[in-house]
Order: sequence, then C-alpha cells, then structure tokens
Amino acid sequence: MIKKIGIIGLGTVGQATVKSIKKYSSLAARRTSVKISIKGVCDADSSKRKIAKKLSIPFVSDAKSLINDPEIDTIVELIGGINPAKNFIMDSLNRGKCVVTANKALLAKHGKEIFALAKKVKKSVGFEASVCGAIPIIKSISQGLVCCDIKKIHGILNGTTNYILYKMGQTRADFYSVLREAQEKGLAEKNPHFDIDGIDSLHKLCILSYICFGVWPTPEKVYAQGISKISLLDIVYAEELNYRIKLLAIAKKEKNSLDLRVHPALVPIGHSLSEVSLAYNAVHLDTAPAGELLFEGVGAGGVATSSAVISDIIGVSLGTNECLKNTRELSFQDIKNIKTRYYIRLMAKDEPGVLAKVSKILANFKISIASVKQKERNKEKLVPVIMLTHDAREENLAKAMRQIDQLSVIKNPSQIIRIEDL
Amino acid sequence: MIKKIGIIGLGTVGQATVKSIKKYSSLAARRTSVKISIKGVCDADSSKRKIAKKLSIPFVSDAKSLINDPEIDTIVELIGGINPAKNFIMDSLNRGKCVVTANKALLAKHGKEIFALAKKVKKSVGFEASVCGAIPIIKSISQGLVCCDIKKIHGILNGTTNYILYKMGQTRADFYSVLREAQEKGLAEKNPHFDIDGIDSLHKLCILSYICFGVWPTPEKVYAQGISKISLLDIVYAEELNYRIKLLAIAKKEKNSLDLRVHPALVPIGHSLSEVSLAYNAVHLDTAPAGELLFEGVGAGGVATSSAVISDIIGVSLGTNECLKNTRELSFQDIKNIKTRYYIRLMAKDEPGVLAKVSKILANFKISIASVKQKERNKEKLVPVIMLTHDAREENLAKAMRQIDQLSVIKNPSQIIRIEDL
Repeated sequence: MIKKIGIIGLGTVGQATVKSIKKYSSLAARRTSVKISIKGVCDADSSKRKIAKKLSIPFVSDAKSLINDPEIDTIVELIGGINPAKNFIMDSLNRGKCVVTANKALLAKHGKEIFALAKKVKKSVGFEASVCGAIPIIKSISQGLVCCDIKKIHGILNGTTNYILYKMGQTRADFYSVLREAQEKGLAEKNPHFDIDGIDSLHKLCILSYICFGVWPTPEKVYAQGISKISLLDIVYAEELNYRIKLLAIAKKEKNSLDLRVHPALVPIGHSLSEVSLAYNAVHLDTAPAGELLFEGVGAGGVATSSAVISDIIGVSLGTNECLKNTRELSFQDIKNIKTRYYIRLMAKDEPGVLAKVSKILANFKISIASVKQKERNKEKLVPVIMLTHDAREENLAKAMRQIDQLSVIKNPSQIIRIEDL
Repeated sequence: MIKKIGIIGLGTVGQATVKSIKKYSSLAARRTSVKISIKGVCDADSSKRKIAKKLSIPFVSDAKSLINDPEIDTIVELIGGINPAKNFIMDSLNRGKCVVTANKALLAKHGKEIFALAKKVKKSVGFEASVCGAIPIIKSISQGLVCCDIKKIHGILNGTTNYILYKMGQTRADFYSVLREAQEKGLAEKNPHFDIDGIDSLHKLCILSYICFGVWPTPEKVYAQGISKISLLDIVYAEELNYRIKLLAIAKKEKNSLDLRVHPALVPIGHSLSEVSLAYNAVHLDTAPAGELLFEGVGAGGVATSSAVISDIIGVSLGTNECLKNTRELSFQDIKNIKTRYYIRLMAKDEPGVLAKVSKILANFKISIASVKQKERNKEKLVPVIMLTHDAREENLAKAMRQIDQLSVIKNPSQIIRIEDL
C-alpha cells in the first residue's frame, strides 16, 4: 500500500526526515507493506526550494496546496511553534487526513482540542517525535504498557540541559561557559530559554501526562524551574554526597491527584538516571504490574527524530497509532503541598551561633536535618554550609528559607535543590 | 468491544495473568475500548482446579474445549515447552483464533512454521511476553523502530544469570553458592540448565533475530556458552581492569551476514549494560537512523510478564500486533570467524620464561597482546596471569590456546572470556 505524504517544514527535522525516507523506507516497506511516497514539501522560507531540489522533492511555498491535495493521505507537520502549525493540523484533520507532528509546544498547549477533533473525524495524530526523539516512548506506554497503572515518571527529557549538567560535572566548568560550548556545537539554541528554563521538558511532561494519565494539564500552571542557577559548587558537593544533579520532569500519581513538576534534582549515583550522559534522554517509569522500566536514547537532532516521524507515518497508515480514549478526573497537586527531601546550600559567615540560628528556624517549621557539612573554615570570607533535610513540606521549607535568608550572617538567596531518592 | 479469551496453563505466569486481568483490565478498557473477558482456563494438572475456583474462573482440564469454543477470540498459551504447546497454537490458528504466547523455546524452534500459518490464516500471534518479560521490546522494535536498520544488539536477556553474576561481584561469593541462594529465592529453577548454560538467552536471541532481521536461525547452530565456568577470580580481575562480566546475547549484522552468539563477556564499567543489576534485563540497540537505544526492566516473574501478555491480548484484538512481513537472505557467521578482543586468565608456574613461551605462541597466531598482569608472586603455587588481547580471530585464538594449554608450566584449561567494547 502506497501512502502519499506532504511535509510542512524543511528545517533540521524536515530535511532529515526526507533523507531518512529515501534511505530507510524500503526497509519499512518490506516489514509492513506500507510504502511512503513524498508528494511534496513546503516551507514558508522560499530559499528552501533549493534544498528540496537537491533532495529531488517537489516544493510548494503554500502549505494549503498540500493540505488540499486529495492524493495526500498524511500531513507531516515539522515547523514547530503554535501558529500557523495549529491551523495546518486542524485543517488537515478536517480534510480527512492523518497527521504526524513533532510539535511538543503545540500539543502541550492545544493537545486537548487537537485530539478531540482527531477523535471526531476518526483520524490519527502521531506524535512519537514530540517526546524524546528516537525513543519510542509514546508507543511503548500506549501499547506495550496499555494495562499498566503508571505511578511515577522521572524523565530526563531535554538533551541540552543534560549535556550542560553532565559537562559541568566532567570538566568542572561553570554553567555559562558550558552553555557557550553547547551553543557552538549546535547542542543549544542561540536563545536557549526554552531548554535551560525547563519549558521544553515541561511541554514533554504535559504530553506524557496525557498518555499516562489521560489528562492535559495547563502548561502555565505546572511548576517548572530550569538549571541556570545550578552552580559548579552544587555539582561538586552533590557528588561528595553521592548524588548527581539532573533536570528532571516528574509525575507522581496519588489516588486522584497528580504531582507534576520540572526542576533540577539530586539523583543517587548508581541509579540509571544518574548515569545518563551527554545529550541523551531517558524515561524511568514505576508501574504496576510491569514494575520499573527505563528507556534511554537520543532525544534530539534531525536524524534520530526522523525515526520517530517515519514510525508514526506507518503507524497512522496501519491504524496502529490508536487515539487513547482514556479520560480521567485527576486534580493537580500544588507544588507547595509536596513533601520531599532538600539539599540546602547556605553561604554563611564563619562565626559561632550561625548553625544554631538556622536550625532553630528549620525546627520551627518542622523541618528536620539529616546531615550538615561545613565545607571549609575561613574567618574572612563566606563559607558554604551544606544541609540535607528529611522529608519536609515545600511550603514550610519556603517559609523557613525566607527567614533564613534574612539573617545577617547569611548571604541570600540560599541554594535549594530537591532530592529524588529513586 | 468485549474480547473473550481462553488461557492454557495456570502456572506462575497464568495465575498472575488472571489476577492482573482482574485488577488492571478496566484501565486498559478505558484506554482502548477493549474489554477482556476470561471464558475459561485449563491446565493438565487438575489440582489447579482449586486455584481457578479461588480466582472465580471456569476451569476445564482439556485445552481442546477452549480451542474449539466458538465464543473465544484469543487463546493465551502459557504452558511452555514444545509439546503440546505447539499443537495448541497451530490448532487455535486453524480455528481462526488469535494467539498470545510467552513460549520462547517453542518460538525459537518452530517460529517460522507458526508465523507462516498465522500469515496464511490472517490471524496475529502476540509474543511480547516471550522476550524480556515486562519490557515492550518486541513492540518497540517492530513498530517504534520500524524503519531502522538494526546493526547491533547487545542483550542481557536472562535474569537468573544476571542475578548470579551481579551477586558474585557484590558479595564476592562463588558461582555455586550464589546459584544455591538464587534457587532458594525462587530466582533460579531447581534444574537451572536452560538459564545458566545460555539456552534461555539463545531462544530470546532467535526471536529478536526474527524481529530485527527477518530471519529465524536454527537454535542448535547458534553458539551459546553459559556462565558456570566464570570464577570469582575473573569477576574481580575484570573489575580491576574496569570491566564487568555479563552474559550477553549478541547480534551483529554486516552486509549479508549475521553474527549471533550468547556468551559471557567483559563489558566496560560505565556503559549502561554494565550497570544492569539484580535480575533485571536490558537490551541495547545500535541502529540507524535512531542511534543507540537502551531498554531496561523486569525480565521475568509472573506479575511483570502479565503486563506483556495483556498488552498482546489487546494488541491482537485491535490488530496493532502486525505480523512482520520482513524476509531477508542473510547467512550466519560461524563463531570461528569472528574477530574480537579477549580476556585470558592463565594459571602459571611462577618461573622465568613462562611469558616468553606464551607470547611466542600467541604471536605465531597473529594475536597481539594489549596488556599483561601477573597478579601475585608465589614460587610454590600457580599464579594467575591476566592478558587482554587486541582484536583477534576466534579460530586463531582457539588454536593458540590449545598449544598454550599443553605447556607444562600452565594448568589447563585456561580461562577465555570475550570482550565487548561497547
């Protein structure tokens, strides 16, 4: 069976997808009988016409001519961003076409509407490429773990930030110099805001929330904290305590409430997630009855992502990419109500009574200390004091830290990083 | 849509599957609209009738009454072994039923015939549970990586042997005492032959070979070596050299030939596979365009495996478990022609000239030495000499070792373990 597709967007992923289809789709055809034929590509940037010519693919500058082409079965949306991507997808579905997209920002924001329309018109939307590039995490969860109660997700969903944290640890360089290196290598965008501030991870977490729990959170309401405030000091001290700092996307389901958040966290060395190196992505799931599972692979880049795009083109053609019909009533947990352990780094004057003042404030808020380390002694300068707490309520910790940061012996703001004892 | 199933076999996996269906199938139904209803279970051991009663499931003692029941859509075969399992599966397909099976030994031996019949009668055979328990590796490869050229597979496919090797390393206990402990914990069978001699891994490798390369090897012709000859010494020395010993199932595709084998191997510490602990399973794939991927999870046990069985029942119902149509002409590489690095442990008399004799023989067979360590000095006793080689041809190494083992200064047989520099 020949499936004609139209590709909107000839950027990194678009170009890689065209090349991968040329190179690997005969293998897929031998395995599934689905032959992919590219009817045309389009890009608003008409200078891409040259690239299309080089790839021997018909180029159009207007997406509508692909969407309205009755011969095309599936529209592959690879432009990213909210508009006009959303209109292209809605129009394609309304014209009876299946859609494949890698657009995490769009799905996180408008997934509910898009999947509602897909259900109404009985067409599939493939979105494997929107989370973790080449890792088939969407198919694994929605098919392989179809009966599983997913209790916890811990994901390293963003390659750029994992690369930066990994390199800081390896080379003992600070955040900004590693970021610059990553930008030079093409591993970080010129404007890295979406990556380093956790927004990209948050979008992917929203999509996983839909797949695992059947609910679409409002992205703006989910707590997301990035890595720009992680200092080399913290990476070094965490290591001494047998932890590595990773930017985690976390979901924890408890009865009818869902705790979703993105933030840097201390992960115990030895746990698979602590070992995820370079720009790799990984998802760790705690499920029943399948138990704990880990998926690791290349999370970004055109070539790897093209594997997910092609698997979706074939999936929607064969009807194996089922729309999930899961809908649940779950409330979202406010971050201030979570209970977790914390790493606290204070920069304190080295004088008697500092620890007494700090620990009194913590005790007032029912926060008990698991361990304290003063890193060095120096009468002249501020010295780092590292504390690990037992489980404490986030709201209490925040209040306590506000008081601690007002002490004249403490330089504010102090560093707080949550601990995930996986 | 209600799918009625019959379950043949009420052993560990059978009982766990019944319990998981009761506990989790409503979740799966909400996600997919497929409701699973167990029409009956059967077991040749009629004492299982009591268990069925406890589970409130109709029990029959004859599988035929399930296979011939026109109301039953899918037969779930969980008895293991070749016969009568094979007949049950063939009969079920011939009666127009889908089949779900966890039977790796049967598929490794008769998969070709079974899938040929499935194709002929246009019914699906789900076999996710036959490889790596709860890890959705079959679906990930056949759907998520459908366009991927899979170049290499390195799998820890057997939980028992991984547990034994892991525990030997952790507790510094010898093979037989850890095996005994594993048997007491129910992690190893009373007769552990299939596990410890690599047969179970071999069966799973044959199934992966079908999924990844479209070919069914003859299991008896694939090289399989178990772990019973791995001594604690080797585990300790490997660690000193920054390696861990793992029982690996390996597939390497080169042009039109396929190198398949199961044997213990030295894996570099730091590579994800070296960190797979306890009875966990993992599969590492090297692919294009998806790059390197790792899947890790619980590889055995009724509860975890029931997740795979249920996902297959739903998969065959929805038609999302497509039969692969991939068929390829690939020849199988003979182990004697492979080239790899080796760890060699000699037990040698501590006298001058030993190393000269050994290295001369190796040189005669074009085997060059990457490093040598003599572990201790002792004029009275034999002392271990550890050598790592550069890449060498297996056939040459075998010939060289035969000569070395005939030297009067060497206690034979010497230990040889292949190195996989992942």
